[in-house]
Amino acid sequence: MATGHKNRQIVLKRRPVGAPAAEDFAIVEGAVPEPGDGEVLARALWLSLDPYMRGRMSDRKSYAPSVALGAVMVARTVSRVIDSRDSGFAPGEIVLGPGGWQDYAVLPAASLRKLDPDAAPVSTALGVLGMPGMTAYVGLLDIGRPAKGETVVVSAASGAVGSVVGQIARIKGCRVVGVAGGDTKCRYVVDELGFDACLDHRAPGLADALARACPGGIDVYFENVGGAVQRAVWPLLNDFARVPVCGLIAQYNDVEPVPGPNLTPVVTKRLTVRGFIVSDHGDRWGDFYRDVSAWVREGRIKYREDVVDGLERAPEAFIGLLEGRNFGKLLVRVTG
Amino acid sequence: MATGHKNRQIVLKRRPVGAPAAEDFAIVEGAVPEPGDGEVLARALWLSLDPYMRGRMSDRKSYAPSVALGAVMVARTVSRVIDSRDSGFAPGEIVLGPGGWQDYAVLPAASLRKLDPDAAPVSTALGVLGMPGMTAYVGLLDIGRPAKGETVVVSAASGAVGSVVGQIARIKGCRVVGVAGGDTKCRYVVDELGFDACLDHRAPGLADALARACPGGIDVYFENVGGAVQRAVWPLLNDFARVPVCGLIAQYNDVEPVPGPNLTPVVTKRLTVRGFIVSDHGDRWGDFYRDVSAWVREGRIKYREDVVDGLERAPEAFIGLLEGRNFGKLLVRVTG
Repeated sequence: MATGHKNRQIVLKRRPVGAPAAEDFAIVEGAVPEPGDGEVLARALWLSLDPYMRGRMSDRKSYAPSVALGAVMVARTVSRVIDSRDSGFAPGEIVLGPGGWQDYAVLPAASLRKLDPDAAPVSTALGVLGMPGMTAYVGLLDIGRPAKGETVVVSAASGAVGSVVGQIARIKGCRVVGVAGGDTKCRYVVDELGFDACLDHRAPGLADALARACPGGIDVYFENVGGAVQRAVWPLLNDFARVPVCGLIAQYNDVEPVPGPNLTPVVTKRLTVRGFIVSDHGDRWGDFYRDVSAWVREGRIKYREDVVDGLERAPEAFIGLLEGRNFGKLLVRVTG
Repeated sequence: MATGHKNRQIVLKRRPVGAPAAEDFAIVEGAVPEPGDGEVLARALWLSLDPYMRGRMSDRKSYAPSVALGAVMVARTVSRVIDSRDSGFAPGEIVLGPGGWQDYAVLPAASLRKLDPDAAPVSTALGVLGMPGMTAYVGLLDIGRPAKGETVVVSAASGAVGSVVGQIARIKGCRVVGVAGGDTKCRYVVDELGFDACLDHRAPGLADALARACPGGIDVYFENVGGAVQRAVWPLLNDFARVPVCGLIAQYNDVEPVPGPNLTPVVTKRLTVRGFIVSDHGDRWGDFYRDVSAWVREGRIKYREDVVDGLERAPEAFIGLLEGRNFGKLLVRVTG
């Protein structure tokens, strides 16, 4: 049991203006909490860091409530059940849940999903077989609707979402061009993930390079980043192109909203620009899990994890995520 | 027959930079042409002036070819058949076709649709029962997908398209707020067309007025104009709002493309921003004509025509259209 242990928690100390800094977070220690009826005490093994958390640090109105000042930062975790006051869960079991940036969490049983460590490495429940993979699946297939032979461009192509988008698009018979930061990531995207091409957005001449890599134009642009990549993509969109807007990570630290692209091509090319949030698409979970877990087993979808050791390193890792310093799905290993 | 008559033609003399000027057009006179096999000689009665023509004056690549320098400006006309070398058409019949800005045109029979003057005034084939009405119908119903009780905002609300959009939205049980230029148009939109409210975009405080007129936010924004109206609408869009982008008339004279709205709400509110061109939706013609002609007969859809007399006045009328000087569907009466 947890007696004698302390619970470390990373709380939001200050709302960032611009890029988050280490000083926006504080680490506090408290007692390990006790579960009530229908609750479970869980100890985090893996903590998922994802770009959406930047939005939760802000008090701008958005699709989900902000983290209150002084409250524990939100996150999905893969955790081990330590104590259970619910008949559905027993100590030792591994669960996915909204554990947050802390060692221990008391969680309602209804918020947990049991994981089978024999089916897949449990950390994949935070990545390729979890929210990021599901985001890729519904965003590409339901919003992007790629047809065989079409050209799909994916930004943040080596990341948790982009890597899955591109591999699914390849499976669906598309030409797939990634955009990523740096030569190492680009080589990985082509050599390991099998994209047709990948362009380094840090290299000069992105617009020209993208035009060369997409001689038939772009039919689906899976938008993760905004900014310079979006500006390079926009003129290359084909008639009836679809732009699933998953995120705009290049803008997350902006203090003032930046303008978007001129909308004339939305009319002249009959574009569909459509945002989505994965949590609205729960009805597709079964399809996603069936398809993507099979593709992972068959080696048709590969994934890469970028693991940081120690809860106390979560803030710096998260700050790096917004700067593109991670390489693959960013995870914090909380307990070894 | 046409012997002895001259054919006046308005040709594109110069590509405008910014707003078109009278000097961008020239009027030339020539002989009345002779139809060949399968062709019809038609004399224009009504000439339709529409904002899309601004795009045809430019040599920017777009969804339809540019008018060549020295060529007759394109337009749909309602015309009388003068001579026919096609068994499907006889002199005296009234036809809709791509007659252009000229008195007489030789047109392939396949490009013509016969009109029944007893069914509706023939000028409506250029407005409420023609391309503008069809644009409103497919844009609102197929792209905007309004549900009963939702709030629909329509820009250019007294115009050929906007007026039909708003009236169909009312028929579908929506709260409908128009935006138009000037008090006279706004009063017409509310008093005659039955919109719930209409705001003058020339009056100060549009954003506040729009927020007050849409206390439950905006579910569908039918975008005709861009610019200041778009900026006022954007913050009021509800989650899952749809923005059918029909046109951006406020930008048509821009020399440099202006930026669009920040795309963050596209994600956080899961917006769908989708452009369309009516000619892609020909499969909906039958539904459109059945529904809208019935609604016009029943007095549930009203329309207003702004008639300019004389082909030679088409350039000034068109220039005024881009400035919002027309009031209702703009038509040139070519022959009395």
